[in-house]
Amino acid sequence: MKAGLIGLGNMGLPMARNLVKAGHALTVYNRKQSRADELKAVVERVARTPAEAASNVEALITMVADDRAVEAIVFNPEGVLQALPAGAVHISMSTISVEMSRRLATAHSERGQHFIAAPVFGRPDAAAAAKLFVVAAGPAEQIARCRPIFDAVGQKTFVAGEQAPAANVIKLTGNFLITTVIESLAESFSLVRKFGIAPGALLEILTGTLFDAPVYRNYGAMIASDKFEPGGFRLRLGLKDNRLLIAAADDAAVPIPMAALVHDRLVAALAQGMGEDDWASVARIAYKNAGL
Amino acid sequence: MKAGLIGLGNMGLPMARNLVKAGHALTVYNRKQSRADELKAVVERVARTPAEAASNVEALITMVADDRAVEAIVFNPEGVLQALPAGAVHISMSTISVEMSRRLATAHSERGQHFIAAPVFGRPDAAAAAKLFVVAAGPAEQIARCRPIFDAVGQKTFVAGEQAPAANVIKLTGNFLITTVIESLAESFSLVRKFGIAPGALLEILTGTLFDAPVYRNYGAMIASDKFEPGGFRLRLGLKDNRLLIAAADDAAVPIPMAALVHDRLVAALAQGMGEDDWASVARIAYKNAGL
Amino acid sequence: MKAGLIGLGNMGLPMARNLVKAGHALTVYNRKQSRADELKAVVERVARTPAEAASNVEALITMVADDRAVEAIVFNPEGVLQALPAGAVHISMSTISVEMSRRLATAHSERGQHFIAAPVFGRPDAAAAAKLFVVAAGPAEQIARCRPIFDAVGQKTFVAGEQAPAANVIKLTGNFLITTVIESLAESFSLVRKFGIAPGALLEILTGTLFDAPVYRNYGAMIASDKFEPGGFRLRLGLKDNRLLIAAADDAAVPIPMAALVHDRLVAALAQGMGEDDWASVARIAYKNAGL
Amino acid sequence: MKAGLIGLGNMGLPMARNLVKAGHALTVYNRKQSRADELKAVVERVARTPAEAASNVEALITMVADDRAVEAIVFNPEGVLQALPAGAVHISMSTISVEMSRRLATAHSERGQHFIAAPVFGRPDAAAAAKLFVVAAGPAEQIARCRPIFDAVGQKTFVAGEQAPAANVIKLTGNFLITTVIESLAESFSLVRKFGIAPGALLEILTGTLFDAPVYRNYGAMIASDKFEPGGFRLRLGLKDNRLLIAAADDAAVPIPMAALVHDRLVAALAQGMGEDDWASVARIAYKNAGL
Repeated sequence: MKAGLIGLGNMGLPMARNLVKAGHALTVYNRKQSRADELKAVVERVARTPAEAASNVEALITMVADDRAVEAIVFNPEGVLQALPAGAVHISMSTISVEMSRRLATAHSERGQHFIAAPVFGRPDAAAAAKLFVVAAGPAEQIARCRPIFDAVGQKTFVAGEQAPAANVIKLTGNFLITTVIESLAESFSLVRKFGIAPGALLEILTGTLFDAPVYRNYGAMIASDKFEPGGFRLRLGLKDNRLLIAAADDAAVPIPMAALVHDRLVAALAQGMGEDDWASVARIAYKNAGL
Repeated sequence: MKAGLIGLGNMGLPMARNLVKAGHALTVYNRKQSRADELKAVVERVARTPAEAASNVEALITMVADDRAVEAIVFNPEGVLQALPAGAVHISMSTISVEMSRRLATAHSERGQHFIAAPVFGRPDAAAAAKLFVVAAGPAEQIARCRPIFDAVGQKTFVAGEQAPAANVIKLTGNFLITTVIESLAESFSLVRKFGIAPGALLEILTGTLFDAPVYRNYGAMIASDKFEPGGFRLRLGLKDNRLLIAAADDAAVPIPMAALVHDRLVAALAQGMGEDDWASVARIAYKNAGL
Repeated sequence: MKAGLIGLGNMGLPMARNLVKAGHALTVYNRKQSRADELKAVVERVARTPAEAASNVEALITMVADDRAVEAIVFNPEGVLQALPAGAVHISMSTISVEMSRRLATAHSERGQHFIAAPVFGRPDAAAAAKLFVVAAGPAEQIARCRPIFDAVGQKTFVAGEQAPAANVIKLTGNFLITTVIESLAESFSLVRKFGIAPGALLEILTGTLFDAPVYRNYGAMIASDKFEPGGFRLRLGLKDNRLLIAAADDAAVPIPMAALVHDRLVAALAQGMGEDDWASVARIAYKNAGL
Repeated sequence: MKAGLIGLGNMGLPMARNLVKAGHALTVYNRKQSRADELKAVVERVARTPAEAASNVEALITMVADDRAVEAIVFNPEGVLQALPAGAVHISMSTISVEMSRRLATAHSERGQHFIAAPVFGRPDAAAAAKLFVVAAGPAEQIARCRPIFDAVGQKTFVAGEQAPAANVIKLTGNFLITTVIESLAESFSLVRKFGIAPGALLEILTGTLFDAPVYRNYGAMIASDKFEPGGFRLRLGLKDNRLLIAAADDAAVPIPMAALVHDRLVAALAQGMGEDDWASVARIAYKNAGL
């Protein structure tokens, strides 16, 4: 497909490489252009503005930091909304708010464009290995049309219905559940450590029984060893997602006490200078509180 | 082995059958004798007192409701502690407090008897299928000696060191982690339901990605469908275990906010008449609070 | 003083009457004009636009629902910011976000106007009796200039420094503390009720000893009797303030677990249809959870 | 009255002096006898056993550390229960569990003795000044009979009915409410401090308006200044009372999330070595978490 991709962060860059590898004709844009220039040899074009990346494409992917970045790129008077051809589709793959997803769906629809929310699960290494999980929601025929894109970056695509924001709700919920695992393991390891039991021993039992899942294996290993390098997902961004989840829950009038608990932990970690660490290092707040 | 088993509840009864099936010569005791009589045809003997079940055995298994039951059975002046032969081993397989485990280890040791804490993970159906997971702690040679017993009731045995209470800490921690999964799913499903997304759709995505573990599949299915029949583990007992976990954490000076959160939910469920339901039905508190 | 007042809700209306009573020449504006017309006989003028209320005044008071209302009234291209004379002062007396207060301070300053944040404590009956407490922050000479206004509506004015947002932080913190009193009493009364003790008996002891303060007497009486009529402050608005507090705390990287706890309660109350009730009726969530 | 008093801690000692001052003929007992000997000159007798202090008295007051101490003193085969004359009354003034109060009421009643639970509010300085608040529950005529004792140590006595445990529920609830004030102020001061506002300024506003009560003034001053000397009530004991409250709530099936929150804070403080500090110093956990 003739596609554009805006946002070459530690997720967007490997995704771009995989899109090229799969044969898509890709135009890329990044705010810091030097990062886009790294791809010069393999992409169709390096755009100098978001609008340029959205012109003449069938699909425009955004993989940017947050709502504010989407706002700037899309709703800017000279932005994506203006430049995207009628009939083309905007695929928002970053983690944005449910409300922004709703706004995007409406705005694109009003201009005869299409919109798919397709956030992904997976850290940079999964992005590099084209092993992301994609959760896509939007008009069925548009999702069908964009399959080659999802297949190029992910190992599996889940379709979450025709309402784009549903995919964002699911993505935020998934991230929320990851944080509950991190916190619950942090508390558990605090406890066993104080009883003289090695966290690794507990982890082996957990993952050898009811908790045999990647989320426990991966985060469990980091938290048990109290080593969080190399960081895949910054705590500051994790806190942002936590806020989006709480905002979505508020919007729907759903109490989410576990998200509130995690929120306090993340804020404490931020206040103590851990904003740029991997978000799993929030576990250290539990360790500290236990006097460890 | 020549073994005794005290406690034929919905876990103890199928365990007894599997011990017999594996060829152990079993004496059983149950407070309500009619339940023990069901096994008359297959066991060596139906004892009329706990002491009788503990006499002339190499290993005495207790699988009873709580600390109070252990207290009554073991520390009664005419109880197990008196009757168990020197050199024999008491295997406590029920979920008891860390403090009681410590007391048992000391008391048995003082009388030249041995003690192993070997609580199990798994619900009655796993007990029936001999698919329990056993977490055993105690003197290494005693654990080796009791392997045939663990193998008869479980699919795998984890050894958690020489200090018996470690196994109880791990068991309580495992149960705690299950409750965090239940609560986190309850909150997640509340959220997606209010956005018009089917809980089953979310669950499929979760278990198809990072959360591909029995605990998410099993409890997820129950909570997503809001059906908790047939109950495997009563909420009232789950609350008891939650209290034991909190007591152990208190003892070790470890804050466990997630356990506190779950505690409040379980107490609310109890107050609203759900004490005899499956403990996963605590999810209904989250649903109620969200106006569902 | 020659003053304007925008917003004649259940707080603004009695405040307007007291300003008139104190001799100020008042122009009023309300979105629903019929409400403003009630004051026709006593005020200088009933304005038909916010800008009209802000023209030709020394001080312009806003007492509106939320940030959005302030946004619409002030930052509208034909709004207060344009109409307010240079040298005049805008006094924001409603409960708005810390961030909005910061924006207002900057925007007014850039136009040679002044800004004071002066939120108030007190319910409609206190507003009617000119017994509000005013917390004012902003340039000292402006606060001195506006004293006659504060004196007309309140029983006491506290000065919180020269930075306007400080007053908003304090107001939000005060409201937060009220919610902690409500929740703590709700939990306490749940407990004593289940022990067969009358909430009123506990309340008498509390207010007769360490807790002899209006907040315990007033809210205590409502919660003890489970009667919340007539409502003075709607739960929906209380939830809004709770959100503003959490946002301010987030902004400053301060964990506020009690605010999170109250948040969940307020959201649960909203989900269960209590949005228009007095915010103290959130106590019913505690009662419900206790099976009362 | 001819009275005995067991327990001369930092509350019991000043209470003993005030009882003597009021003219009561007092026998005292303390585990560490040297402490009792300090009173030799003024009391009737220094007893060498709890039983001796309970013999030949009309009323026997216990003011000891916890349930365990009561257990040892009263239920010991040679304890108070045996020694107290028929018709005499045991007044338990320390903070004990609801369950222990129930046991005491039953045990004394079975022996033709009387029992009053009469826990007090107030710190050592209030005890020294005979300014305690007494909350008494038990048979009305016994309370009437003991008035002179209550009047000698306190400024006011509240009667909480004929069921002794009611007084303990109320006392625990009062202590719980104090902890909610401490925690809510700790969070509030964390917030304003990070906005550059002096905690003292906030406190002045609070106590000048809705929060004009001793509990806010006293604890507020300590927390605002981050100075907790001299400690009046040790954190370790505060945690004990928190546990008793949670146990009572559990017993009655009442969720008490605020108590759970405070519990986690107190445990964190204990784990970080603050067990012997004043319980208000738990506020430092909030400060730490905010990076202050």
